[in-house]
Amino acid sequence: MLDQRLRLLLETIRRLIRREAKGNLSNLLRKIHPADIAHLIKYLSSAEGKWMFNLIENPHSAATVLREVEQETQISLLEGLDEVRTSQVLQEMPADDAADIIGGMTEEKADKVLQLMQRKESKEVEDLLSYEEDTAGRIMTPHYFALHEDVTAREAITKLQEAAEAEMVFYIYVVDNRQHLVGIVSLRKLIITYAATPLKNIMVSDIISVHTYTAQEDAAKRVAKYNLLAIPVVDEQNKMAGIITVDDVIDVIREEATEDIYKMAGTSGEELLEKSAWKIAGIRMPWLFITLLGTFISGSILKYHSATLKDVISVVFFLPLVMALGGNVGNQSQTIIVRGLATGRIDPLAVGKIIFRQIKVGLIMGLLAGVLVGFGISFFSFSKAMGFAVGFSIFISIAISAIVGTVTPLLFRKMNIDPAVAAGPFITNFNDVFGILFYLGFVTAMMKYLV
Amino acid sequence: MLDQRLRLLLETIRRLIRREAKGNLSNLLRKIHPADIAHLIKYLSSAEGKWMFNLIENPHSAATVLREVEQETQISLLEGLDEVRTSQVLQEMPADDAADIIGGMTEEKADKVLQLMQRKESKEVEDLLSYEEDTAGRIMTPHYFALHEDVTAREAITKLQEAAEAEMVFYIYVVDNRQHLVGIVSLRKLIITYAATPLKNIMVSDIISVHTYTAQEDAAKRVAKYNLLAIPVVDEQNKMAGIITVDDVIDVIREEATEDIYKMAGTSGEELLEKSAWKIAGIRMPWLFITLLGTFISGSILKYHSATLKDVISVVFFLPLVMALGGNVGNQSQTIIVRGLATGRIDPLAVGKIIFRQIKVGLIMGLLAGVLVGFGISFFSFSKAMGFAVGFSIFISIAISAIVGTVTPLLFRKMNIDPAVAAGPFITNFNDVFGILFYLGFVTAMMKYLV
Repeated sequence: MLDQRLRLLLETIRRLIRREAKGNLSNLLRKIHPADIAHLIKYLSSAEGKWMFNLIENPHSAATVLREVEQETQISLLEGLDEVRTSQVLQEMPADDAADIIGGMTEEKADKVLQLMQRKESKEVEDLLSYEEDTAGRIMTPHYFALHEDVTAREAITKLQEAAEAEMVFYIYVVDNRQHLVGIVSLRKLIITYAATPLKNIMVSDIISVHTYTAQEDAAKRVAKYNLLAIPVVDEQNKMAGIITVDDVIDVIREEATEDIYKMAGTSGEELLEKSAWKIAGIRMPWLFITLLGTFISGSILKYHSATLKDVISVVFFLPLVMALGGNVGNQSQTIIVRGLATGRIDPLAVGKIIFRQIKVGLIMGLLAGVLVGFGISFFSFSKAMGFAVGFSIFISIAISAIVGTVTPLLFRKMNIDPAVAAGPFITNFNDVFGILFYLGFVTAMMKYLV
Repeated sequence: MLDQRLRLLLETIRRLIRREAKGNLSNLLRKIHPADIAHLIKYLSSAEGKWMFNLIENPHSAATVLREVEQETQISLLEGLDEVRTSQVLQEMPADDAADIIGGMTEEKADKVLQLMQRKESKEVEDLLSYEEDTAGRIMTPHYFALHEDVTAREAITKLQEAAEAEMVFYIYVVDNRQHLVGIVSLRKLIITYAATPLKNIMVSDIISVHTYTAQEDAAKRVAKYNLLAIPVVDEQNKMAGIITVDDVIDVIREEATEDIYKMAGTSGEELLEKSAWKIAGIRMPWLFITLLGTFISGSILKYHSATLKDVISVVFFLPLVMALGGNVGNQSQTIIVRGLATGRIDPLAVGKIIFRQIKVGLIMGLLAGVLVGFGISFFSFSKAMGFAVGFSIFISIAISAIVGTVTPLLFRKMNIDPAVAAGPFITNFNDVFGILFYLGFVTAMMKYLV
């Protein structure tokens, strides 16, 4: 949403774009916070966005805008720049963000852009690209501030004053002669320390760090757990390789949550980067096939019970009821477990209480819904036997759905299969099939009371 | 999950608890990071957890443990403490976290605890409690570090050295004579500045702030957008009231994502705080009732078409197919939109392209599934007419589900109804009902080709 100020800005920008007033727009852009420019670009057409992005003179501002927009927009904005300008903008970005963008280019273009970038910056980007995707190594910045343990507080302050590059300094990392990370000093501690004290006397030596190959998600969880502003990343020899700052952690946490939500619904975050509707359909297709398989089984069960259906057609009327109620409860239980596992709220080693509680919830809901529906059917002119058959089937199908919805994600997790991906389609289809199977079997068994 | 180190610790702790070795355990706890203690508590029974929590001598450590555990565990751990100890622990917590806990106590207990707390701390908590839940005011800390604009850099450093309280100082907030926030100076800027320069000459005066009544979610989004470490909170007169630090922002972002995921599945984050299975069932019931209503309509449609069903019983076999496929695609589209709105990736004012793309995806998936199923049915011994009827119904129901799944959350948002809550049950049930309605209508219309 836009507040008053941004709405006015947007109107002005649109007017200037219509008039093609390059000079005026360029001046205006200089006065707007890059994060706001990034926000406003959403409201422009892709052609307008490109045109405006070209008018941001300061490559550092352009880089900040680029960091803040969605990946889809990044690609579109960069299309409008030649390779020289692209390299100018990218070398103003933190190396991890630049690596992210260059990693998505064709090899040919990536090579050209890297060649055009300044030696130091392109080296940094290439270093990051050597780590696997989704590892801590890939999002760390090499611009941390490390000093030897014998340096004094006063010297440290002087060095800090000389260091133009280390823009986001929160901590001073203390290393020994072999560049091993041995301690951490906060800026505040540095300021309040007597000038001649060496860092090794004021540093915290209980270091919380991650490895270059640690998963980004785990690095983010650690930063959140210990309330850090940045976490050091070390290599196999415990030598410092970089740091991950809290702003990147926020992005990781958000992305992970979004990915999980999409996976549970049978699609993926990639969908948002995809412009082609055909490719999106491709991403979603696997789930559709699993559903086809499930409904094929359900259909076969119905076919098997044709005689029952023909004899008592009202059995069909309650089919959606049995399917939908079980599906509901199964989905609720599954969601609680999958998200709980992802946030760490549910620990896969301490789940006894949670399983027990979810099963109890399933039994209660099954009982309530079953009794309600059973009496409802008996009351509204259908037979009492039918009320009992449907009510009892609902009870069983809700209870089983709750159990399956609870246990399946935990089992998948134990088998090291991502529960967010696997549990959804499996549980939904299993519950549909089971519900129909039980309902029709039970009704058929009760046939003599129904006709 | 536990790494090697934590697993060993857990074993030792369990052994000490079994032996009731108070002294040893208390010593051990002194050496473990409170965030790790919080993590380990998950693996203990609630009685063991309480017993151990009582052995943490340092009230500041106990406070940190309490901040890191889930709310459910917080309540259980506090049950084990008397009011004096409770007040000692709570006054070591940041006021916002203490307010959160005290806000959940009975009024009687809250009064007692507040009385036992030191005057200054209890005042802070009471101040925070005067703001609405979920507002920025409720999670801000009053321990920011503000100085007058005429103070010099050197004086600022001296004051900082004296300030024991402001533990998480990232920025120095600069105020005028009337306590209005007029600028911000980063610690790093302060360190590299010449000693006699007044703050007003080095401060950034473009301030990004929020109001005490701003929603926590919006405050968190702003911190993420501008990559801040803390955001100042001002009152109606633009006077500083507190700051929100990035560690609280991470919690808010996580909580919001979790809440959204649960709401979409028809339950709520409250479920996790609830131990009673009956109450959890109560939280989930509304969705079940909406589903009951939906399936009542579906059942009525089926009843209306009894004649068709009796004549061509194979129509029933494909009922799960039509329902499930439409439900799938509707759910996918809905998820993309609801989460996109929540993260700001989708802007409610610029949705043309997205709607269009989702509809295209729906048409493609409908076409593929419809053709596949249609031919499948024709091939496997059922009639060609039946293949056409089912295939075409699937095409229509998938396409409509995609449209409804895309447009409904946007409409709810426009009406200021939370799309995560309202869209799920509405869309699921609408799509089920519509699928059955179209399928049976179409089949009945085609009756003469089917028998």
